[in-house]
Amino acid sequence: MIRTIALDQNNQLVKDLEIEKIVNGNYLWYWVDFHQPTEKETDYLRTPLSFHPLAIEDCMHHMQRPKLDYYEGYTFFVTQTLNQLATLKEEVDFFLGKNYIITFHHQSCTEIDEVWKRLVLSENLEKWDASYVFYLILDKMVDNYFPLVYQIEDMLNELDENSKRRSMEELLEDLFDTRHSLLSLRHTVTPMRDLLYRILNAQRETYIKGRSEYFSDIHDHLLKLTEMIEANRELTTDIRDSYISLNSHQTNHVMKVLTVITTIFMPITFIAGLYGMNFRYMPELTWKYGYPWALFIMAVITIGMSLWFKKKGWFK
Amino acid sequence: MIRTIALDQNNQLVKDLEIEKIVNGNYLWYWVDFHQPTEKETDYLRTPLSFHPLAIEDCMHHMQRPKLDYYEGYTFFVTQTLNQLATLKEEVDFFLGKNYIITFHHQSCTEIDEVWKRLVLSENLEKWDASYVFYLILDKMVDNYFPLVYQIEDMLNELDENSKRRSMEELLEDLFDTRHSLLSLRHTVTPMRDLLYRILNAQRETYIKGRSEYFSDIHDHLLKLTEMIEANRELTTDIRDSYISLNSHQTNHVMKVLTVITTIFMPITFIAGLYGMNFRYMPELTWKYGYPWALFIMAVITIGMSLWFKKKGWFK
Amino acid sequence: MIRTIALDQNNQLVKDLEIEKIVNGNYLWYWVDFHQPTEKETDYLRTPLSFHPLAIEDCMHHMQRPKLDYYEGYTFFVTQTLNQLATLKEEVDFFLGKNYIITFHHQSCTEIDEVWKRLVLSENLEKWDASYVFYLILDKMVDNYFPLVYQIEDMLNELDENSKRRSMEELLEDLFDTRHSLLSLRHTVTPMRDLLYRILNAQRETYIKGRSEYFSDIHDHLLKLTEMIEANRELTTDIRDSYISLNSHQTNHVMKVLTVITTIFMPITFIAGLYGMNFRYMPELTWKYGYPWALFIMAVITIGMSLWFKKKGWFK
Amino acid sequence: MIRTIALDQNNQLVKDLEIEKIVNGNYLWYWVDFHQPTEKETDYLRTPLSFHPLAIEDCMHHMQRPKLDYYEGYTFFVTQTLNQLATLKEEVDFFLGKNYIITFHHQSCTEIDEVWKRLVLSENLEKWDASYVFYLILDKMVDNYFPLVYQIEDMLNELDENSKRRSMEELLEDLFDTRHSLLSLRHTVTPMRDLLYRILNAQRETYIKGRSEYFSDIHDHLLKLTEMIEANRELTTDIRDSYISLNSHQTNHVMKVLTVITTIFMPITFIAGLYGMNFRYMPELTWKYGYPWALFIMAVITIGMSLWFKKKGWFK
Amino acid sequence: MIRTIALDQNNQLVKDLEIEKIVNGNYLWYWVDFHQPTEKETDYLRTPLSFHPLAIEDCMHHMQRPKLDYYEGYTFFVTQTLNQLATLKEEVDFFLGKNYIITFHHQSCTEIDEVWKRLVLSENLEKWDASYVFYLILDKMVDNYFPLVYQIEDMLNELDENSKRRSMEELLEDLFDTRHSLLSLRHTVTPMRDLLYRILNAQRETYIKGRSEYFSDIHDHLLKLTEMIEANRELTTDIRDSYISLNSHQTNHVMKVLTVITTIFMPITFIAGLYGMNFRYMPELTWKYGYPWALFIMAVITIGMSLWFKKKGWFK
Ligand SMILES: [Mg+2]
Ligand SMILES: [Mg+2]
Ligand SMILES: [Mg+2]
Ligand SMILES: [Mg+2]
Ligand SMILES: [Mg+2]
Ligand SMILES: [Mg+2]
Ligand SMILES: [Mg+2]
Ligand SMILES: [Mg+2]
Ligand SMILES: [Mg+2]
Ligand SMILES: [Mg+2]
Ligand SMILES: [Mg+2]
Ligand SMILES: [Mg+2]
Ligand SMILES: [Mg+2]
Ligand SMILES: [Mg+2]
Ligand SMILES: [Mg+2]
Ligand SMILES: [Mg+2]
Ligand SMILES: [Mg+2]
Ligand SMILES: [Mg+2]
Ligand SMILES: [Mg+2]
Ligand SMILES: [Mg+2]
Ligand SMILES: [Mg+2]
Ligand SMILES: [Mg+2]
Ligand SMILES: [Mg+2]
Ligand SMILES: [Mg+2]
Ligand SMILES: [Mg+2]
Ligand SMILES: [Mg+2]
Ligand SMILES: [Mg+2]
Ligand SMILES: [Mg+2]
Ligand SMILES: [Mg+2]
Ligand SMILES: [Mg+2]
Ligand SMILES: [Mg+2]
Repeated sequence: MIRTIALDQNNQLVKDLEIEKIVNGNYLWYWVDFHQPTEKETDYLRTPLSFHPLAIEDCMHHMQRPKLDYYEGYTFFVTQTLNQLATLKEEVDFFLGKNYIITFHHQSCTEIDEVWKRLVLSENLEKWDASYVFYLILDKMVDNYFPLVYQIEDMLNELDENSKRRSMEELLEDLFDTRHSLLSLRHTVTPMRDLLYRILNAQRETYIKGRSEYFSDIHDHLLKLTEMIEANRELTTDIRDSYISLNSHQTNHVMKVLTVITTIFMPITFIAGLYGMNFRYMPELTWKYGYPWALFIMAVITIGMSLWFKKKGWFK
Repeated sequence: MIRTIALDQNNQLVKDLEIEKIVNGNYLWYWVDFHQPTEKETDYLRTPLSFHPLAIEDCMHHMQRPKLDYYEGYTFFVTQTLNQLATLKEEVDFFLGKNYIITFHHQSCTEIDEVWKRLVLSENLEKWDASYVFYLILDKMVDNYFPLVYQIEDMLNELDENSKRRSMEELLEDLFDTRHSLLSLRHTVTPMRDLLYRILNAQRETYIKGRSEYFSDIHDHLLKLTEMIEANRELTTDIRDSYISLNSHQTNHVMKVLTVITTIFMPITFIAGLYGMNFRYMPELTWKYGYPWALFIMAVITIGMSLWFKKKGWFK
Repeated sequence: MIRTIALDQNNQLVKDLEIEKIVNGNYLWYWVDFHQPTEKETDYLRTPLSFHPLAIEDCMHHMQRPKLDYYEGYTFFVTQTLNQLATLKEEVDFFLGKNYIITFHHQSCTEIDEVWKRLVLSENLEKWDASYVFYLILDKMVDNYFPLVYQIEDMLNELDENSKRRSMEELLEDLFDTRHSLLSLRHTVTPMRDLLYRILNAQRETYIKGRSEYFSDIHDHLLKLTEMIEANRELTTDIRDSYISLNSHQTNHVMKVLTVITTIFMPITFIAGLYGMNFRYMPELTWKYGYPWALFIMAVITIGMSLWFKKKGWFK
Repeated sequence: MIRTIALDQNNQLVKDLEIEKIVNGNYLWYWVDFHQPTEKETDYLRTPLSFHPLAIEDCMHHMQRPKLDYYEGYTFFVTQTLNQLATLKEEVDFFLGKNYIITFHHQSCTEIDEVWKRLVLSENLEKWDASYVFYLILDKMVDNYFPLVYQIEDMLNELDENSKRRSMEELLEDLFDTRHSLLSLRHTVTPMRDLLYRILNAQRETYIKGRSEYFSDIHDHLLKLTEMIEANRELTTDIRDSYISLNSHQTNHVMKVLTVITTIFMPITFIAGLYGMNFRYMPELTWKYGYPWALFIMAVITIGMSLWFKKKGWFK
Repeated sequence: MIRTIALDQNNQLVKDLEIEKIVNGNYLWYWVDFHQPTEKETDYLRTPLSFHPLAIEDCMHHMQRPKLDYYEGYTFFVTQTLNQLATLKEEVDFFLGKNYIITFHHQSCTEIDEVWKRLVLSENLEKWDASYVFYLILDKMVDNYFPLVYQIEDMLNELDENSKRRSMEELLEDLFDTRHSLLSLRHTVTPMRDLLYRILNAQRETYIKGRSEYFSDIHDHLLKLTEMIEANRELTTDIRDSYISLNSHQTNHVMKVLTVITTIFMPITFIAGLYGMNFRYMPELTWKYGYPWALFIMAVITIGMSLWFKKKGWFK
């Protein structure tokens, strides 16, 4: 589907024009939105919009990373929106020229819908132009990254606090998934940040000049996001390393308990076994004080061993 | 609450003027402090101060990272104070112009109160101006970061020394929390350092020129803090890694003790069990030297095993 | 084998000319492909092509890393193709001049064959020239890196999902091999990326000017590949670290089970052994309630121990 | 204590002048050394030397990191000497002007004493000036860092070789302390290196020009030190990681021994116990070949288990 | 020993001249080689060669890192050759001037000997000059680094393949030594690479201009070496981490075997012991079906336990 909107010479919004008319017409500025376009609609990018074949190819393909390319007369931007789970990334492409903006996306994009609605309802049309539309969409996109990071922070907090109530396999699985999400997030946020940096420090015409404080504001948000993502990755590493330390300590403690038990009972059980032998000629067996003597030996061994382990600090 | 102070043409301090008067008046310089401002008071940022909507938005929102933004006629700074536990960060915003400074903060800020008091009591008014006020507040803020790092260093020293007296779970928990605090501290100190670096190396007017050695002094403190934080993070890693090494070694030692005990007693206990069997036809049982022979075999096994383990170095 | 193709003054493709003729002839542009050349054929690089001895030496030797060298009148490129397993790398060298391209490779190169065929069949000869040939080959080369990375991603996904069905030794072996492949891939992709970066930002003549958006498109692909490789390496680290955490946890759990069993049965087995001794004078043995009393003691020990371990949380 | 030395117009050394005289006098160059100065002596930095209050503040405070500050007419340097254990760092501050050097230190400084003595005894006074004094002191300071690093290298070598003779707890403690010392050293050497780098690449007057090859020589030493420190830190990591690997392997081996012993003796001990039961009706007990049969079963179990473990490679 | 060679005005090689003559003579270019020089010979560096005292000091001292220093009229280079084991590094110093090269080395240097011989036997003298000699020696030096890295790669391959045949202590020791060698290699190769980079990008006269493609070729080799060293270090880390993972897994498996054995035999051994007690009044003992009943109970426990462990997956 393609929808168009344009501001004519009388400062009136005109909607749903044909592309050919809008391109060749004499409008102050216009916006064409390619929403899940058909193959035929996509052809408009070639004629009449005559964009570069490489930029059109980038619109067609998925798996692009956010970037900007300078072409003669316009700048081409690839950006990404993130859905709630940070695993499904959707690409939104922009062509930004002196007096137009073209948006191109294979999935529905709520950020674009909202800005479209706001433009249509706007009573203050003079502050709007192509680069302002671009700013508003980008700002909303980046604002929508935050809930994903907050969600991860909540998960990590819950993981840290509840760590004793749930099964360890689940906790480790969650930790692994969280790290995976953070990695995925970083691969959107970092190139988006670099994209904004390049917009702000461009030597060439990017058609956003005069609004650099607005794009600088988005850049701030992306810097903040980068730091939050890095901090959370370090936190997951710390949680896992602490967990390994703790486990290593507990295993050591359990080993000591086991060794103490074994070391105390093995010798006395052996003695019991010894006097359970059925040899005919065993003088101790018929000795009157054989049994008390055996008990005494066993007590000595038990107490001796216990004191020895106590001295070695294994009961702590 | 809003409070104002201004230096009039006769070099006299005038206090508690209305904002409109002060802005339109002919003062040498003035300072307006927005302290936990109401919504109505915040509106003064728009009129009569007419700051940029994006800067005002940054004042409203929390979760900003320290930064500076250039606007026409003034520079906008976001900074952070830290409370005693380094987890609660409070934002202080500054608008610094040619002849004014505006401070804006949602919580009470002791650093600002101190400088205000010092200005009011000052007898040497000619050395004061807006950028000097800014320097004094920033200097105090950064000085107040140090106790937090010292506190962490003390905690790490105590952790290293006391490690044998307290429970290991507590120690590991403390280590984890310390790392968390250091991470949080770093996220304030690093952007503050970059902020100072940008002030010192700015190409554009930041309204602090002529005082760069003063801001360079604050930059020194932030460099020192960065190094201390990094060193302490490495120290926590080292403590934990050493702990894991030590634990791994101890577990190994305990395993050896257990294995030695088991290996010596299992065969002789088996022999005892063997001659404890109740078969009617067991020639050894009626043999006169059966018992001493069994004892001899057991002794041989015990001594042989002991020598073997001694040779393998398991008694060390 | 050497094959040549040239565009003559009448815009006609001429094939299989001798090298001397082509070099000294008056062609619009030409392409010479050294395909598994004999030693005698290689000599053409010296005469009549008169390239620098160091560039020729680089053609001869294997184990070069991708790079570009500026020489007077031409640029020399070393690039690498990857076979399906990412372990066998094959070198392709290019000499790119104002009106010629020389390709040199010791193994057959499908990318070159395809472009050759496409040129021969082309009906639109005016868009072709030496740098376009170079672009097409490079573009295909880099496109062929992707299946290798996808293959690794599939392997990692399968590894993550199937981890419970296959033997752990195999899984760890696969993980190690995957990391090895990623390392090898990185050593091709990173210098290729730097090569493209240098082409795009060259201060000197690289004979590709006027087509920089085409080479920028390849650079995009290489940036994407670099990120995918790094992400996958981090993923392998995460899988392994998670695995170690999980194992450490399981070992701890198994230890607890073992210790509980040992601690409960050792004392009661000792008591059984005690009353299995054959001393003549053991009053308990003849006591009427000796047996029930012994059973009662054993039950008390069993229940007491169980409660104690339950309280310590070892049954979880 | 303050001591002064100056070169007068007749190329004669004059000692122990009053500071006021020396500052206002007409000397070719002079050196004032503040050695553990009293508060009153420190005031000379204000009058008559009139240095900047921030530089004087830096002299007063400890815990500075090495740095340089440009002031009008002079450069201020903070440097550090290290004592034998690398834990006690002592600060030495320099003010270097066109024709003077001021040294300031709260502890006695052997490097300064040596250079002072050398100057007093020098017969070749024309090669001396303020920046040469600065070079000589700095050169000696940095030369004195080397023994500390060599000492650490010796300790690491000894640690690596003797690792089997001493107790493991001591070794791990030593390793931890070595890492701590290296961290501390790095925090002196790295900013010192940056200091020298800034001296060599200064855009502003540092009053050492014309001697840059001398300061470059010190820079070399600091680069070498940085590399040695980093290499030694990596070495300690490697020693510890190797140790953990070895321990993990040994624990695994000990576990196998324990399991083999347990697995062989448990079943045969059970059989012995079985025929040690006192049931009245146990047909095997009265069977003539009961005992040999039991022994045969036990032998079969023992041999079977042994072969099974041999096949699994647990005896290696 | 000092040897000299010079090209006189008639393009003839003249050998074994005295240094004074050669320096003051009118030769096209000359080469002086200080081979294990005596103290007296070293003095020639001062007179008549009049090099800077700091450069001469660097010749005297060992433990220099590769570097270059600019002096007026010549450049001073410190380089390193590596012997077969990469642990013994030997320093070679160069003074490169407009028409001379001075080589200085305390040990015999095969690279220099080869180039000397080649010069003496050369029939094509016009292509030779001081910078070409420098290039040839440096090229050979760097070529000689490769066998060391190949040797390490072979060792790692062998380590990876043979890991099951040799003792683990030896393997870990080899791994540690390999990492140590790689660290040592890196400390030669990295500064050598930086040296070449500085030669190629020098702003000042390095007396090699006009041959930059030759030195660029050496730079390529050093880049390749750096990558190989880094890759091999990562490989050793991977081998060790894989080994730890595998060991952790095996220990876990051995623990499970031990626990299964213990858990199955302990209860039935206890029952056997129970009925081996000698109490006079034990009704089960005289019960006709006591023995089969006991056997049945034991079988139930054994099968129950086995099924339980099978369900928990401990037999895998
Ligand atoms: Mg697309
Ligand atoms: Mg926003
Ligand atoms: Mg916003
Ligand atoms: Mg903002
Ligand atoms: Mg962080
Ligand atoms: Mg961490
Ligand atoms: Mg705010
Ligand atoms: Mg301060
Ligand atoms: Mg201060
Ligand atoms: Mg200071
Ligand atoms: Mg540090
Ligand atoms: Mg560390
Ligand atoms: Mg080649
Ligand atoms: Mg492509
Ligand atoms: Mg393509
Ligand atoms: Mg593309
Ligand atoms: Mg990544
Ligand atoms: Mg990771
Ligand atoms: Mg001081
Ligand atoms: Mg020195
Ligand atoms: Mg020296
Ligand atoms: Mg030197
Ligand atoms: Mg190193
Ligand atoms: Mg290491
Ligand atoms: Mg472990
Ligand atoms: Mg030397
Ligand atoms: Mg070479
Ligand atoms: Mg070569
Ligand atoms: Mg080469
Ligand atoms: Mg690598
Ligand atoms: Mg690795």
